[in-house]
Parts: sequence; structure tokens; C-alpha cells
Amino acid sequence: MTKATPPRQLHLNLNALHSGFVPSAWRVPDADPRAFVDIQHYVRLAQIAEAGKFDAMFLADNASIADQIDFRPITALEPTLLLACVAMATTHIGLVATLSTSYNEPYNVARRFATLDIVSNGRAGWNVVTTADAGSARNFGRLAPPDHAQRYARADEFTRVVKSLWDSWEDGAFVGDKHSGRFVDTAKLQPIAHHGAFFDVQGPLNQPRPPQGHPVLFQAGGSSDGRELAALHAEAVFSAAQSFEEAFAYRAEINQRAEALGRGQHAVKVLPGLTTIIGATEAEAIARRDALVDLIPWTYSLNRLAGTLGISADRLSLDQPLPDDLVLPANGNHTFFRATVAFAQQRGLTVRNLIRELAGGGGHRVIVGTPEQIADDIEHWFVNGAADGFNLMPDVLPDGVQAFVDGVVPILQKRGLFRTEYEGRTLRDHLGLARPQGRTSARKVA
Amino acid sequence: MTKATPPRQLHLNLNALHSGFVPSAWRVPDADPRAFVDIQHYVRLAQIAEAGKFDAMFLADNASIADQIDFRPITALEPTLLLACVAMATTHIGLVATLSTSYNEPYNVARRFATLDIVSNGRAGWNVVTTADAGSARNFGRLAPPDHAQRYARADEFTRVVKSLWDSWEDGAFVGDKHSGRFVDTAKLQPIAHHGAFFDVQGPLNQPRPPQGHPVLFQAGGSSDGRELAALHAEAVFSAAQSFEEAFAYRAEINQRAEALGRGQHAVKVLPGLTTIIGATEAEAIARRDALVDLIPWTYSLNRLAGTLGISADRLSLDQPLPDDLVLPANGNHTFFRATVAFAQQRGLTVRNLIRELAGGGGHRVIVGTPEQIADDIEHWFVNGAADGFNLMPDVLPDGVQAFVDGVVPILQKRGLFRTEYEGRTLRDHLGLARPQGRTSARKVA
Repeated sequence: MTKATPPRQLHLNLNALHSGFVPSAWRVPDADPRAFVDIQHYVRLAQIAEAGKFDAMFLADNASIADQIDFRPITALEPTLLLACVAMATTHIGLVATLSTSYNEPYNVARRFATLDIVSNGRAGWNVVTTADAGSARNFGRLAPPDHAQRYARADEFTRVVKSLWDSWEDGAFVGDKHSGRFVDTAKLQPIAHHGAFFDVQGPLNQPRPPQGHPVLFQAGGSSDGRELAALHAEAVFSAAQSFEEAFAYRAEINQRAEALGRGQHAVKVLPGLTTIIGATEAEAIARRDALVDLIPWTYSLNRLAGTLGISADRLSLDQPLPDDLVLPANGNHTFFRATVAFAQQRGLTVRNLIRELAGGGGHRVIVGTPEQIADDIEHWFVNGAADGFNLMPDVLPDGVQAFVDGVVPILQKRGLFRTEYEGRTLRDHLGLARPQGRTSARKVA
Repeated sequence: MTKATPPRQLHLNLNALHSGFVPSAWRVPDADPRAFVDIQHYVRLAQIAEAGKFDAMFLADNASIADQIDFRPITALEPTLLLACVAMATTHIGLVATLSTSYNEPYNVARRFATLDIVSNGRAGWNVVTTADAGSARNFGRLAPPDHAQRYARADEFTRVVKSLWDSWEDGAFVGDKHSGRFVDTAKLQPIAHHGAFFDVQGPLNQPRPPQGHPVLFQAGGSSDGRELAALHAEAVFSAAQSFEEAFAYRAEINQRAEALGRGQHAVKVLPGLTTIIGATEAEAIARRDALVDLIPWTYSLNRLAGTLGISADRLSLDQPLPDDLVLPANGNHTFFRATVAFAQQRGLTVRNLIRELAGGGGHRVIVGTPEQIADDIEHWFVNGAADGFNLMPDVLPDGVQAFVDGVVPILQKRGLFRTEYEGRTLRDHLGLARPQGRTSARKVA
């Protein structure tokens, strides 16, 4: 009797962006404008996502004040502390925090994610990013951000140091034998003695190896350097794609790059960002989107779109198409630039309609429809190789994730695409990732 | 009718040092050797301390592996994350984390303590320290630690930047008016535009002003530079003194320095470290201490004492007094050096008996006795001006703090020295500290 291969399973993360992905989410009748600084709001989101058997809650981050804070919430609470709080009120859901390699020290970062992994019993993930904006640079003693290549070279070395620090204790180093008085077997602790272009770090870490060995590594950059970093280190990628073709090509490329680096086949789970706007009928969903877009000041949307395009907002006219002389901005997000321009041109959209179709957003894909329509779309991308799952960015929180869990998840479960119960306890379990083998001292082999 | 001045009240912090202050605490029958990485252990400690109406839970920190980890636990979990977890399981107790100014960035530190203050509804405190050990230096790209004066100059500038960032939003900057669509009044956000010897930080912080205005500033250094830093910034000091006279002089000096800097009278609460070993009778308490000391390897204690004294352990003989040619170590803790030497000499102790009297410890005062004896001692120091309260370091945790809460607290309450209920909700409320006034925009005055 041949045992059937278990069907490939979807992975779903909740991107818990304060009041929701649509910039006006904080203005809807049920919203509490203070949600962005209310830890109970985030706990509630995690509990809804956990009830829906999501793989993880994901948090973005910034190191400067956002533009246009006059119109919308910002990422205010520091994500590792926020997720430490959430860990205390949940039992299974993974907890993924963004933390930049540009303005931190690897020893401190290794320690914080090891702590998050310990307090959550193995549910931590680190979204490795670099920080490109000028505002952040000026908060950390720089007149301008480091250039793209340097940011990514630092990120690669930073990540290697952090992984080495996590491995600086062997799994069996902690002894805790009351009788002999031996607390730690120091022969199973090793300095990492890293000396590189950016960092000199001796180690070992002042913390045992985390429950997952390594907290799961996420990455979110779509540039060529970003793809290389993902291929080198990422176990899951939060990507951005407007079309199936883009997403398919991206997923294939990342996995080919990873395979070329000796990481095996399908080493990287690719989870495109996806905003959902759900209605009982398609017309209701469209009405919901339009009502949300109508609550966003046009000034805000024009400035945001201009930011993505790397131009001044006065070059955009609401009832004209995008200017046809756009060029990749030097220090912006190239993925969002390309996806937004292609989206507008393929559909022949005016600026006004582009903003409407993007729900005032910043480059991630938006689906507007019934739970069935959304499930169909997710299934299509998943089954046909454009995605291993999605980083969901509901329009309004907690409403939007509740509607997804109540409406879309049962359909995906019925189709056998998504778990009905957690089978494991760690984020690695949920993602089907092996626990990285740590070091083994020579002694043990002898 | 004259309203009576409310009697001055004691302040009590629990220093939640993993399994307890005595190095062998993890070996006693009820101890779980894994407590140092068990978040539920710390939650339990906080809940016991909160039931005892303590002002705060206090956590030390390190940025390198401790010496002699073969024999005892270390500070492993990162304190700001640990206290974020504890915040979720408590309602009143203050949460004070140590975080070094030597190997961090002020923008990141301002953000983490603002987050801790928000998630705890105003219970955060920051113990501002510098990091002097060679091991930490090598984890952050340095061959050796910066010298004492430079460490403290950086700490001063660092603290000033952090305070400015906390004030970079006026209290009324957040609007959240759904009707008008105004989220934040950006006229009430100001860059700090700091340009100093160590840092260039533009600001503003990407977070509203914390509930307490500023999380409470603690300090723990006893050197001359440390005292100056305390006089400049600290609202509470975790000090070290073996004798009443030392403690009295220290408290007077800190407050004189602060007053000379224009901070008013009694600006700084002085809380000496105090280890308690409690028994139903004095003989039982002594037996408890001796049993604990007997579980500490002599090698450990000799190395630790030698470290405090800045000498090699082979210069110490268990049945001899301390060497008489000791000199202040260049980069060690001068407070512990002085207190330990004076303690041994005044009592004419051999090394063995010194270690016994210090309970194997590292320079903080130890009281061994009944709850009544401990309450008498605390009252004497408090009433006669040697302390505003204590940073309690129970011998074994949670046992030792439970015994203190059950035995000593009721006596202190009966004598009118300590609160029977929390009167406020924030750490500032507990410590009787005013909320720092933030900035007010010109507009508001006009």
C-alpha cells in the first residue's frame, strides 16, 4: 500500500497593520482610532487569526515618523515587545516581527528574537529588512541612508552573525543538575569569533539556543539584492505582486536562486501580500471598498502614489493616466514601483481609478469580492505555483480578518487546502520547516 | 484645621534575579533550574510582589555571557521583552528594565521604553547603565570597553536624547477625529535636531508621548561619574551600601548634587540593594543561609570575590583575612570594591567568613533574621535617612519574596511605613514622582 503524499498546504499570515491596510480604516464607525497604540487590539487580532489557524501574525516596522501621519496611523509600538505581549495571550500562532539590520547590532537582535522564541515556546520569526528612508538615517547619525548594495551586504553579514550566535550554545549545553552543581556545560558553548566587513562579534550569546534552533527567517525585499538575500537566508518571503505572472516568476526565481546556493528544492515559502475586501455579494464588497476610498483624502492618496513613483505629487492629475516618463527611483521600493506602473498601464487606468483599485494602498494586490471569489483566487494562485500562501492585509481590523476567518477559511478548509487544526506547536511546524541542526562538540562524536 | 502631612512611605522593588540572589538558589529542592528561561517564573514573581504592593519589579541585564555560568544562572531573557510579558499578567506593579547606553542607539531605546510604558499603562522604568566589561566590548566590535569618563559622557548625552524623543510629541498631538479625518496634529510634533559629541538624532519619535511622560529613570552606578549621572537624571537609584553610614552619606550626597543642579530637594529616591534570608527564628534563618552557602562551590565564591577585588583568586586564602595591599581596580565596580573591603576589615573576617556573611554574594548587604528583625532594620535605615526604600534581592525565588510578602510586609504596613493598597496606577504614582511636563506648542499659548 502506498501512503499518499499529504497535499501541499496553504500558509496564511495576518499582517496586523494597526487599524487595517486601507488608510481610512481608523475612520469607520466601529474603529477605535487609538487601536494603533492599544495592545488589546493586537491581542484580539492574534486571537482571531489563531482561531482561524493562521500560521503567524506579522508586524511591519519603521525607524522614523511616517509621512502623512496627519491622515493615518503609524507603526508605533515596537514589534518585538508587542509580540512578547501577544505571546502571553495565545498558544499556537507564529509571531513574526520586522527588525532592521541597518540601525541595530546583531548581538542585541539575536538576543531579542531568542527571547521571543523562548517566551512563546518556539513561535518567533524575524523579518530581516534594511532601512532605506532618509528620515530614519537622520535618526541614527547619518545624513543619508547607506546605498542599496551596502545595506544588503550589511544585512547578509548581520544575518550570518545572528545565526551563529543562536548556534553558539549547543542544544545540550544547559545541564541544571542540582546534585552535581553543574549548571551549564561550558564545553558546549563556543565563541563565534566573527570578524567581517561590518561586524566583529566574539560571542557566545548570553542565552541558550532558542526552542526552534533559529527563529524562522523572513525577508521582504524584491530588488535584485533583496532576492539574493532571500535566497541566502529566507525561509519565507513576504513578497509583492499584482499579477499571477509576476508572482509565478518571482517564486520560481527565488527558489532557483536558493537551490543554486545548495539549499535544496522549494526552500523558500513565498507569501505575496494580499488585501481582502469582503462582502456578502460582489456588489457589497465593491460598495465597501468605495466607501473606504471615499474616506481617504485625495491629497493623501496622491502623495502616497507619488512617493511610490518617486515623483512630486503635482505631476499627477486625477483624471489622467500616469505620466509616461517614469523611471525607477534611486532609493525607493522597486517592486512597488514596477507593480504599480504595470497595473495602471495594463488596465489603462486614470490616477483616480488606480487609487480606487489599489484601495488607496501602496502596491500590494487587492481582491474585492465574496468569500467564495476570494477562496477561488487564492486557490488559483496557490495550486498553480504563484504562491505558497499569503500575507493577508485585511482592509479594516479586526473586521476584515474576522470576515476572512468566518467566510474564507472554512471554504479553503473544505477544499483541503488549509489546516483545520494546528498539527504542531512551533512556527517551524506550521510552515513545515525543519529545525536547523546546531553545532555538536567534537567530544560528543568521540 | 491643619491637614496632616502624609507620613513618608517606603518604596520596595523586587530585584527578580532569576532563581535568587544566592548563587546556589537554583539547587534548593523546590527550585526549577530552568526558571531563568521560564517566563511563567517571572510572572509568578511579579504577581507575588504585586500582592505585596511593591512599587516595581526590577531586572538587571548584561551584554555578554557571565563568568562561571557552569555554576549559576545568568540574566538570559532580554528584560524589556520579559517585562512586556509581565505587563500582560499584572495591573499595578512598576516594571523597571536595565538597558545599557554603551551598545545601543537612543532612538531604539526611547521607542522600546515608550512601548513598555504604553502596553503597561504607565508602569515602565529604565535603569540607565553603562557597560564596562571586556566580554561585552568584544560582542560589539571593540577590543576593549570605552574608558569610564567616556562611558558616562555617552550615557548622559544618550539619556538627554531619549528624554527629548519622549517629548517630541506634545501630549495633545494625537487627535483621532473620525469626522474631520485628522489623525495627528503634526504642528504638535517637533524634531529634536540633536547634534552632540556622540549622537545626531533628528526625531521626532515614531510614537506618541508615553503615558508617564517619561518612563521613570533609574540609575545604579556608585562611582563619581555614576553619582553625577544620577544627580542629573535619576529619579530613583539602586545603590549599594553595607553600612548605615555609607548609605546615609550616599543618599545625602546624591540629593545635594541634584539640588545643586536645580532639581529641588529630595529629588532622588535612594533604594539600596538588600538581600533577605528569612527564618521563623534567627537560628533558622542562619541555618538557611549556611545551607545555601554550603551549596556554592568555594571555587565559585573565591573567583567572584577576586573579581570584585580586581585580583587573581590565588591571592585569597579561605582562612586568612583579605590581602592588605588591595587597590581600586581600573575598570571594576568601585562601590562593591569599597563596600566589600570595609565590611571585611571592620569585622575582621577571614575570606571564608566574609563569603559566608555575604551569602556568596557580590557586595550587596545581606540581612539574616526573623521578619520582625528585618522590619526593624528596614525601619531604622528608612526613618533615619539612609534609604527611601530598598531594592530587595531575596535569597531564593520565588520562596524568598513570598516569605517577605507574608512576613515582613504586614509588619511594615502595621507600623504605617508601607502602603496597604496601591493609591495610583502608574510607577510615578507609586514613587510619588510628578509627571514631567512636556513641550507646549507656541500656538497653544497664543
